[in-house]
Amino acid sequence: MAKVAIVYHSGYGHTKLLAEAVAKGAASVAGTKVDLVPVEEADAKIEILNAADAIIFGSPTYMGDVSGQFKTWADTTAKVWFGQGWKDKIAAGFTNSGNLSGDKLNTLQTMWALAMQHSMIWVSLGVMPKTEKDGLVLNRLAGYGGAFSISENAAPGPDNPDKGDIATGAALGQRVAEVTKKFKG
Amino acid sequence: MAKVAIVYHSGYGHTKLLAEAVAKGAASVAGTKVDLVPVEEADAKIEILNAADAIIFGSPTYMGDVSGQFKTWADTTAKVWFGQGWKDKIAAGFTNSGNLSGDKLNTLQTMWALAMQHSMIWVSLGVMPKTEKDGLVLNRLAGYGGAFSISENAAPGPDNPDKGDIATGAALGQRVAEVTKKFKG
Amino acid sequence: MAKVAIVYHSGYGHTKLLAEAVAKGAASVAGTKVDLVPVEEADAKIEILNAADAIIFGSPTYMGDVSGQFKTWADTTAKVWFGQGWKDKIAAGFTNSGNLSGDKLNTLQTMWALAMQHSMIWVSLGVMPKTEKDGLVLNRLAGYGGAFSISENAAPGPDNPDKGDIATGAALGQRVAEVTKKFKG
Amino acid sequence: MAKVAIVYHSGYGHTKLLAEAVAKGAASVAGTKVDLVPVEEADAKIEILNAADAIIFGSPTYMGDVSGQFKTWADTTAKVWFGQGWKDKIAAGFTNSGNLSGDKLNTLQTMWALAMQHSMIWVSLGVMPKTEKDGLVLNRLAGYGGAFSISENAAPGPDNPDKGDIATGAALGQRVAEVTKKFKG
Repeated sequence: MAKVAIVYHSGYGHTKLLAEAVAKGAASVAGTKVDLVPVEEADAKIEILNAADAIIFGSPTYMGDVSGQFKTWADTTAKVWFGQGWKDKIAAGFTNSGNLSGDKLNTLQTMWALAMQHSMIWVSLGVMPKTEKDGLVLNRLAGYGGAFSISENAAPGPDNPDKGDIATGAALGQRVAEVTKKFKG
Repeated sequence: MAKVAIVYHSGYGHTKLLAEAVAKGAASVAGTKVDLVPVEEADAKIEILNAADAIIFGSPTYMGDVSGQFKTWADTTAKVWFGQGWKDKIAAGFTNSGNLSGDKLNTLQTMWALAMQHSMIWVSLGVMPKTEKDGLVLNRLAGYGGAFSISENAAPGPDNPDKGDIATGAALGQRVAEVTKKFKG
Repeated sequence: MAKVAIVYHSGYGHTKLLAEAVAKGAASVAGTKVDLVPVEEADAKIEILNAADAIIFGSPTYMGDVSGQFKTWADTTAKVWFGQGWKDKIAAGFTNSGNLSGDKLNTLQTMWALAMQHSMIWVSLGVMPKTEKDGLVLNRLAGYGGAFSISENAAPGPDNPDKGDIATGAALGQRVAEVTKKFKG
Repeated sequence: MAKVAIVYHSGYGHTKLLAEAVAKGAASVAGTKVDLVPVEEADAKIEILNAADAIIFGSPTYMGDVSGQFKTWADTTAKVWFGQGWKDKIAAGFTNSGNLSGDKLNTLQTMWALAMQHSMIWVSLGVMPKTEKDGLVLNRLAGYGGAFSISENAAPGPDNPDKGDIATGAALGQRVAEVTKKFKG
């Protein structure tokens, strides 16, 4: 059984939809247990993260980086870092924001730096830009280090973020579950 | 009169000492008005930032990036960003953390991304690594995009952060004030 | 007279079109002298760069960073760096690549790091995402630290890169010239 | 048998010493085949890289990023990228330069971006800052995403780079070999 935890912040619900897609993608791999942990509950549910084989980080990109809520939670993991409790866990990341490229890469770099401090192992997206699948376009934003999505300035819904972006999140979740399974042996 | 504001977060007081050095350096330039604004007061004192010619960002590096407190404040500047109220202001940055390089550069990259979203103009440190001045070693950490300091795991004091690192902060403050003055004409 | 130099590499001609647009934008500001310097000639024309008030860096994004040709040239500037010959010059950057966001931000971060080592002053793009102007959409890629363009996998031409992306380059050139003029007094 | 290839550039021989330490660390893990490939030979020896289970990237930090030689080689891997020939290989990185932190992190970010484009899996250093081992101090530079070393401005030798930095490289090599072995099952 490979355990995949997704810890994320969502301000208006768009990143939550992406997080749920990542979870669904991970759950599609046989023998995978998936936990979705909003950052607001992450301190209380730290045992879920500590027990996970993989932790996937998710946050909106606000002002060019992870959100304050995500970062505030990330800072609390210094306790775990001190004892290197997450060493060798698999890591990955995703982010949503309101425009094309923006500074989404800086958000992933911050998540990567966090994962590196925890001595984790970072999994790439593994989907080439503009890959077509089931009538959708995956990775239209040409991310490589993780999954990117765009939300329009409207309530979250079945087309917001875009269906292809959502499917990109699912592909990331599936890939992380597969890599984790292989790594656990 | 060139107005320089320093907005910073300090968890244990080390970054505060660096912030005060930056302020002192800026104030050493004739015709400069300097304001030190802790992030806890930054929302209430937003008019000081809005009126400034230069804003210098300061934060500890926690888990590889600016602190959650700094980032939470940075997110509130989205209101200003929307109207591009800080366009053409001068920007710069500094950070303190408990080890040599760590991921201090990622912290500066996040501050730079923030400044770029606000359409600001970013000033480099302008001090070569290991520059000797008044018996101190400036920029021993070989930063270029801003000022770096190291604190030992002990209460802040006259040698914590190191005197040379503190002097590096003062050099950054002085440089920003000089550039701002020149830019204002 | 403000002197703006644009030093760029172009593999297939798309980045060259963007460089020419940046040059045109800069030249549109009265009292600006503009030089376009391909990296292949940059060593021979180093005096042009040394005499410039502003240097704008341009490169394709290849494999997530500036091109090898651009980087090979950048390394030769270590001689100038040693004497800090470009200190206080204005800097900016632009990049072109074949997909949306890709890792264009990493390219700008590399150019920024180069400018910081030279103790330069970095100017942001200053154009909000999806700004409409003269029937074109500027900054559709939501860059902030510099100008981004996309080229299709075809010969360069009037629509490749996209006209709005090209106009974004012109806006960057104009802004750099204006800031440089103001800074020179 | 886990195959680990180290592809590196060294301008003056310091990074070569670090590369050799990484190789020695990897070879210390039973059942590991190690190949050291200077970038000058990497095009001719591409089959070694294509057959490897793990590729470790090494470069000096020049002007804030990988060297021009390293980047020029990295660009040639676009052919492999197009067919995603390195998908799921393990990746890691190391860099040497003449000062403390400098912009070494930017060099690692560039190597990480390269690895992500190739859909690889990135392994962290996994050694806490200032770890003492066999009378040496490992990771004194507080890197997390890879191994950092400093060289003095003198010929390479048994103390240049520092013995602790060299041992940090060996620790990275060992860790990559262990992770690769586990991942191969």
